[in-house]
Amino acid sequence: MEMIEEAARKIINMEVRGAAKIARFAAESLLKFAQKIDDDFDVKIKEAADMLLNTRPTAVSLYNAINYVMQYSGRTVEEKREDLIKRALEFINWVDSARREIGKIGVRRIKQSATILTHCNSSAALSIIKEAHEAGKDIEVFATESRPRYQGHITVRELKSEGIPVTLIVDSAVRYFMREMDYVIVGADAITVNGALINKIGTSQIALCANEFKVPFMVAAETYKFSPKTLAGETVVIEERSPREVAPEDLLSAGIRVRNPAFDITPRRYIDLIITEIGAIPPEMAYLVIKERFGFRLPTEEEIIVSPEHYD
Amino acid sequence: MEMIEEAARKIINMEVRGAAKIARFAAESLLKFAQKIDDDFDVKIKEAADMLLNTRPTAVSLYNAINYVMQYSGRTVEEKREDLIKRALEFINWVDSARREIGKIGVRRIKQSATILTHCNSSAALSIIKEAHEAGKDIEVFATESRPRYQGHITVRELKSEGIPVTLIVDSAVRYFMREMDYVIVGADAITVNGALINKIGTSQIALCANEFKVPFMVAAETYKFSPKTLAGETVVIEERSPREVAPEDLLSAGIRVRNPAFDITPRRYIDLIITEIGAIPPEMAYLVIKERFGFRLPTEEEIIVSPEHYD
Amino acid sequence: MEMIEEAARKIINMEVRGAAKIARFAAESLLKFAQKIDDDFDVKIKEAADMLLNTRPTAVSLYNAINYVMQYSGRTVEEKREDLIKRALEFINWVDSARREIGKIGVRRIKQSATILTHCNSSAALSIIKEAHEAGKDIEVFATESRPRYQGHITVRELKSEGIPVTLIVDSAVRYFMREMDYVIVGADAITVNGALINKIGTSQIALCANEFKVPFMVAAETYKFSPKTLAGETVVIEERSPREVAPEDLLSAGIRVRNPAFDITPRRYIDLIITEIGAIPPEMAYLVIKERFGFRLPTEEEIIVSPEHYD
Amino acid sequence: MEMIEEAARKIINMEVRGAAKIARFAAESLLKFAQKIDDDFDVKIKEAADMLLNTRPTAVSLYNAINYVMQYSGRTVEEKREDLIKRALEFINWVDSARREIGKIGVRRIKQSATILTHCNSSAALSIIKEAHEAGKDIEVFATESRPRYQGHITVRELKSEGIPVTLIVDSAVRYFMREMDYVIVGADAITVNGALINKIGTSQIALCANEFKVPFMVAAETYKFSPKTLAGETVVIEERSPREVAPEDLLSAGIRVRNPAFDITPRRYIDLIITEIGAIPPEMAYLVIKERFGFRLPTEEEIIVSPEHYD
Amino acid sequence: MEMIEEAARKIINMEVRGAAKIARFAAESLLKFAQKIDDDFDVKIKEAADMLLNTRPTAVSLYNAINYVMQYSGRTVEEKREDLIKRALEFINWVDSARREIGKIGVRRIKQSATILTHCNSSAALSIIKEAHEAGKDIEVFATESRPRYQGHITVRELKSEGIPVTLIVDSAVRYFMREMDYVIVGADAITVNGALINKIGTSQIALCANEFKVPFMVAAETYKFSPKTLAGETVVIEERSPREVAPEDLLSAGIRVRNPAFDITPRRYIDLIITEIGAIPPEMAYLVIKERFGFRLPTEEEIIVSPEHYD
Amino acid sequence: MEMIEEAARKIINMEVRGAAKIARFAAESLLKFAQKIDDDFDVKIKEAADMLLNTRPTAVSLYNAINYVMQYSGRTVEEKREDLIKRALEFINWVDSARREIGKIGVRRIKQSATILTHCNSSAALSIIKEAHEAGKDIEVFATESRPRYQGHITVRELKSEGIPVTLIVDSAVRYFMREMDYVIVGADAITVNGALINKIGTSQIALCANEFKVPFMVAAETYKFSPKTLAGETVVIEERSPREVAPEDLLSAGIRVRNPAFDITPRRYIDLIITEIGAIPPEMAYLVIKERFGFRLPTEEEIIVSPEHYD
Repeated sequence: MEMIEEAARKIINMEVRGAAKIARFAAESLLKFAQKIDDDFDVKIKEAADMLLNTRPTAVSLYNAINYVMQYSGRTVEEKREDLIKRALEFINWVDSARREIGKIGVRRIKQSATILTHCNSSAALSIIKEAHEAGKDIEVFATESRPRYQGHITVRELKSEGIPVTLIVDSAVRYFMREMDYVIVGADAITVNGALINKIGTSQIALCANEFKVPFMVAAETYKFSPKTLAGETVVIEERSPREVAPEDLLSAGIRVRNPAFDITPRRYIDLIITEIGAIPPEMAYLVIKERFGFRLPTEEEIIVSPEHYD
Repeated sequence: MEMIEEAARKIINMEVRGAAKIARFAAESLLKFAQKIDDDFDVKIKEAADMLLNTRPTAVSLYNAINYVMQYSGRTVEEKREDLIKRALEFINWVDSARREIGKIGVRRIKQSATILTHCNSSAALSIIKEAHEAGKDIEVFATESRPRYQGHITVRELKSEGIPVTLIVDSAVRYFMREMDYVIVGADAITVNGALINKIGTSQIALCANEFKVPFMVAAETYKFSPKTLAGETVVIEERSPREVAPEDLLSAGIRVRNPAFDITPRRYIDLIITEIGAIPPEMAYLVIKERFGFRLPTEEEIIVSPEHYD
Repeated sequence: MEMIEEAARKIINMEVRGAAKIARFAAESLLKFAQKIDDDFDVKIKEAADMLLNTRPTAVSLYNAINYVMQYSGRTVEEKREDLIKRALEFINWVDSARREIGKIGVRRIKQSATILTHCNSSAALSIIKEAHEAGKDIEVFATESRPRYQGHITVRELKSEGIPVTLIVDSAVRYFMREMDYVIVGADAITVNGALINKIGTSQIALCANEFKVPFMVAAETYKFSPKTLAGETVVIEERSPREVAPEDLLSAGIRVRNPAFDITPRRYIDLIITEIGAIPPEMAYLVIKERFGFRLPTEEEIIVSPEHYD
Repeated sequence: MEMIEEAARKIINMEVRGAAKIARFAAESLLKFAQKIDDDFDVKIKEAADMLLNTRPTAVSLYNAINYVMQYSGRTVEEKREDLIKRALEFINWVDSARREIGKIGVRRIKQSATILTHCNSSAALSIIKEAHEAGKDIEVFATESRPRYQGHITVRELKSEGIPVTLIVDSAVRYFMREMDYVIVGADAITVNGALINKIGTSQIALCANEFKVPFMVAAETYKFSPKTLAGETVVIEERSPREVAPEDLLSAGIRVRNPAFDITPRRYIDLIITEIGAIPPEMAYLVIKERFGFRLPTEEEIIVSPEHYD
Repeated sequence: MEMIEEAARKIINMEVRGAAKIARFAAESLLKFAQKIDDDFDVKIKEAADMLLNTRPTAVSLYNAINYVMQYSGRTVEEKREDLIKRALEFINWVDSARREIGKIGVRRIKQSATILTHCNSSAALSIIKEAHEAGKDIEVFATESRPRYQGHITVRELKSEGIPVTLIVDSAVRYFMREMDYVIVGADAITVNGALINKIGTSQIALCANEFKVPFMVAAETYKFSPKTLAGETVVIEERSPREVAPEDLLSAGIRVRNPAFDITPRRYIDLIITEIGAIPPEMAYLVIKERFGFRLPTEEEIIVSPEHYD
Repeated sequence: MEMIEEAARKIINMEVRGAAKIARFAAESLLKFAQKIDDDFDVKIKEAADMLLNTRPTAVSLYNAINYVMQYSGRTVEEKREDLIKRALEFINWVDSARREIGKIGVRRIKQSATILTHCNSSAALSIIKEAHEAGKDIEVFATESRPRYQGHITVRELKSEGIPVTLIVDSAVRYFMREMDYVIVGADAITVNGALINKIGTSQIALCANEFKVPFMVAAETYKFSPKTLAGETVVIEERSPREVAPEDLLSAGIRVRNPAFDITPRRYIDLIITEIGAIPPEMAYLVIKERFGFRLPTEEEIIVSPEHYD
């Protein structure tokens, strides 16, 4: 169990972060832990799963990862272990192959010469952009700095190092440049049953601007980002982070209040297309994706964490 | 057959009314009638079914109830009776459990402290509101009076008796108060294949106002409200009721014309979510619900009553 | 002063009601009172004016009437009286001629065969409809019943007696019939500097529906309905009337709360045209009308009654 | 192979044209060719299929026809031939029955007395209109002339010969008359996975106008018009035709440039309903139709022709 | 009077056409006629004015021209003649200078490198485009062919001869290319008091498309195109021209009906800016322009030709 | 002239900054300089004015200040000086009184308990907020940090020191919180003739979000912010500032491009009200304000700096 405690700590400390990375890491951790269980397999692995789940109770990809792995079966410990390991490896493979596949599907939507806006730092979204560049398309990228944590700085370095011309702008300048964009491509933290996108704070107002000028707004999202619990009415909880990310100490000590939501919600009416590893779909199809990938089962009462302060 | 004639009379007289109640009552009536048939089972039960269907030929829930029960099979009268009874009980159980389940799913969408607007008197919609109140949420309700039959008076009494603070307004005041609402929740008489809602007259302009201020507009609808015939192009017929519901006698005798449609049609673009007993879905998914629940079979020519005067 | 007290009582009791009638009556009352003042003209007439103004402190037409009359000048009592009487007569003439002129201008907007929706009971709006009928146009009218006070009943009788075919509908049925309308024509209680219309509760959702189907929404408004105080930032106060207009006694005594605003606010984006006695104008021109008719002077601090609970 | 070369020539020369006709003709050609193959069945038939496919590489119905027929199986030449012939006949029957079925489903959406706008010359769209006329409905049609090739002239003759009153207008006059239309009904060259319609140039601005006045915009589309490749991210390529269709010789020789796209793209937000032979569905359901009819398989890399210059 | 009859004939025969040219020609004709009147000046000149006005009773610029010239004053024939001639010359100068001034003001709105869409053949609109080209800006133009009379052919020749790159498209292709446009610039036949534009059929759907993609839609309009009569409620009458412009003889003789309105109406909500010779203004300011240029006087009953079949 | 050079330097160095402060300072500088001129008054003062104007050639308030002061008249140096000083003092007084007056007018729009969003640091906007607080209203403020220069930090300190509860958010979080706002109030750098607002980068996407949820968006703008040159077609030039404000040195030296526009343009359709010192007006009235305040004269060719890269 120490091993799991250590893994949990890494997620909590944000040594491991990003929706895809956390999910993959949790599957790996369960796999490794399962290899060491001698008896009481069901009880011990459940305890480990719960511990991991509690590190980021609102992360949809983590929930899906653990849920996928935990649907092992078998009569003996050996059978159970074997099946769990098989499932964990399947999930890990899912993570690894999905992003590649999204790049290959997404690139077909991009015309020969295009200017693309992106927000924050999504590996699935960048996978499309890089694929387009490698395919010899004439791509230029505008990236927002993505306050408060400036993930845009990572994005511009990453693209620049691939030789893609890139321009950094403040988050406030999105509408100013929107008329010149051919596409907006962003990633996803989660997709709900009614096609809403949960993603880095600021995404929804970018989508609104894209809609104003009818610039196609596309989301790159692996299917393990789709939230089966929203089918049961659950709303995705928006994490609120430390004021220190936003304000200098002197402002805080002067009694200035800070609100720092990490994500926001983009309703389906502003999304043109979601590019998943199983195809490019309209957001209204989220329900069907959930059904196909997660078996459509309504989650039980206890599987649901209800904290519905936000809705779109 | 007298028993069925009696049942039909009750529906026509509106002793039994409301989409859910009529559907349940028709299933019960067929069940009871089936218990008494000695011979010519198919012919007699078909005659009974037709008589019931003709009481409210445009009611989708009644059509679905009878259609469900009538898909019995068997070689002997006994086998047929047994299967029909089984199916009738299944349908009755469907009605009873669906509303409860909708309450449980819907409550997860409601935040801790919320003001909700409702229209007319829908038991499925109220089920969500009551569930939220029981869950300790701080709920306040605005209810329209719902002219011409004032079903809003029933609603405010019903909620008040549960201890929920409730405010009555005229139907014209909806837009005036919309800015202060957190949600609109209404019921459904029917849902079409392209996600339109047929419900009490006035619903569509409430949805339009909710959309203007981006207040989430949610529909509580059991899946037996979904209309399989609309898949075949049929439009739902809007019943027009007596002028006497609207105008005093002296106006009518003065030659004033009255138009009194009982329902109107809310197109899918104004609906955020439909809460059914099988999950919370976007309205575009109506087609899939119909397929899953009713087998996707295109109705035959004779099953269709064509009177397409309205469309949205 | 007794005469003025009597006049004030009539306004408070609603013996005299309707924006135009109140304004005209106040001008008349000041005129009659002025005829009897012997000395201290300025003081006494000011006292009378204040008393009248306080009967309906939020009525724009009353404010404009009194303000117009009170801008008399003169050195002696006789001169002042004479000038005040002249101004009062001018205002009374303004009221009488404006409605006729609106009918004449408005009728030119109506095509040869038209179906028109109206709300409540506005003499200026009906003046256009009657003028069109008299001009031999083939006019049909739909009138809302206009809960809670059913002014629609007055409207349908009034039009029927002129031989105009008329249909009564509940307020909730507006969107259902909107597709069949050629115009919506309503009156005004007030027009603000930024072109918003204050009118009978329900008007704004009718305008919203008209806008959805692009049915021209026209307002018939005498220029003394335009509010000069809104130029100084004042918002028009929405009167809230007795719950007894809405709910039966038993509901009230059961603790049901009622909200009963008399008017609502239609923003300029839903108004195609305002028909005044000085021409047909877009709502954005309200500022210019105020300037032309009321001299553009910013009202002083004390002229303004600030109670800005509503805005659009 | 000569026979296939001849067939290919006919498609290239536009002797055979129209999405449905080309598809049917390709299936027939493969059928006939298969009847004559002695050996190397797979190789020879593949060569024939490729030759046909290359005549109009961007036509979705052609791709679907050939793809359907080519999924034959069998161990011997005889088995293969037999299965291919069976599949070709199935496809031909699909084409023939789908249009009839669309007429029967579509007519149920049309009210008793209606004015319908159509564009270009779509047999599926006209099938609904004729069916309505035959059903005794009081139908009137407005048809655009459909520059540059004036297919509207064919449409007005075709409808007139059925006794349907018809009015011809220039393409620019669509918005002028939109207020008087009850429906717009058009055909489809292709439907994409996210519910966009590819159809004759001008269709998308008609849809935009219909949306402005909330006139229902309906598409008549056989399911073999749905593009499975768009699921894999492919965009439908818009053919650009000869400038000579648009400009007289003297303008061209004066150096005037001409752009002459044959189709345009109507996004799902302007489409109310797609009427297919398997039911009337909202455009968001395109994905599900593709899955149900084409097995949902992601096309392979080589099956995809990528030329994504247009997107909506 | 023969001279006036001759002039009237030229307008009727369309030897003289175009809103600006007709207006200028009418002023000239009155000027020449006035030079020859010996006695009964008022009577004779009035007769001449009426004859000219009746040639195109719905043309706003003609009405304004004649109205302007006819406001001469004087006691003797000589004084009257002199004043009329002065006014006629003023009007002629107005026409000549306004277009130049519009070019100079409009060019400032155009960025250094721009693609502009225009419709029909407006000298005021082209004046801006040419001015931009002469100012060394990198201008490219897309011109619609403008069925039924193909005025677009004149436009492309005219621009090409100035060395401006130009592309001809069918009217249906406007939305297809809209995303690539930087501006739409069109002329005006008339501007109404509520800021609506009356212009060549097709203009309003171009404006709708421009609005969809937020491409600035600008109107070049001399102030004598503004209609003072619309202030009095008059609507601008839309001329309907010969079916022969649209359909070949064989279609007409086959009983095909044709509707051929010459103009349509673009409501103010789709117009960003009107460029007049007195400045660049928003369309809502039309009322003020009318007031400033035409004295704001409500036209008398007899000055108004009422034929209000269209409205926007 | 040294004195003027010194003043110009201060503006260039941003020792003096802010639209109001620069304008006031320029008027003061001219005043002081005029006191010292002995001869050649016209020449010398013109030289000084030009030098000041060139410090920020795109600032509308600076242009208006200098233009106002420079309209002095007189025959002798003494008369000219006297008149110039009088005009300079008038302008200084205009600046000082306008903000106070805006506070007094704006406060009337604010309801008793309100949450207000503001952007950047506008003294006119804050004047309304403070006035509301002082008037005893229950005000809470959300302020964006306003990257790249964090003027939001100044705003929150300023409001906090007045005792107003204030919350700081990142610019990306605006849409997330918009539903909870009662008003948005911002300042203005300039207002154009067609009612567009030029203000701090980010303003236009805040306005777009406010419009989505129908939260009133109000602008506080002294009338010397209105641009008379836009009447002549000029567009307001958007200053682009140093990349160093946005990106750290290492990103810049890595070849990352930065775009850093200081302002953006909010079109009139998203603005509910402009609060000026002469009243609260709709944005469409900008033209009239320009006329009333600046005499409506079209600027001459040389007064206009043409650099029209942006437009809305």
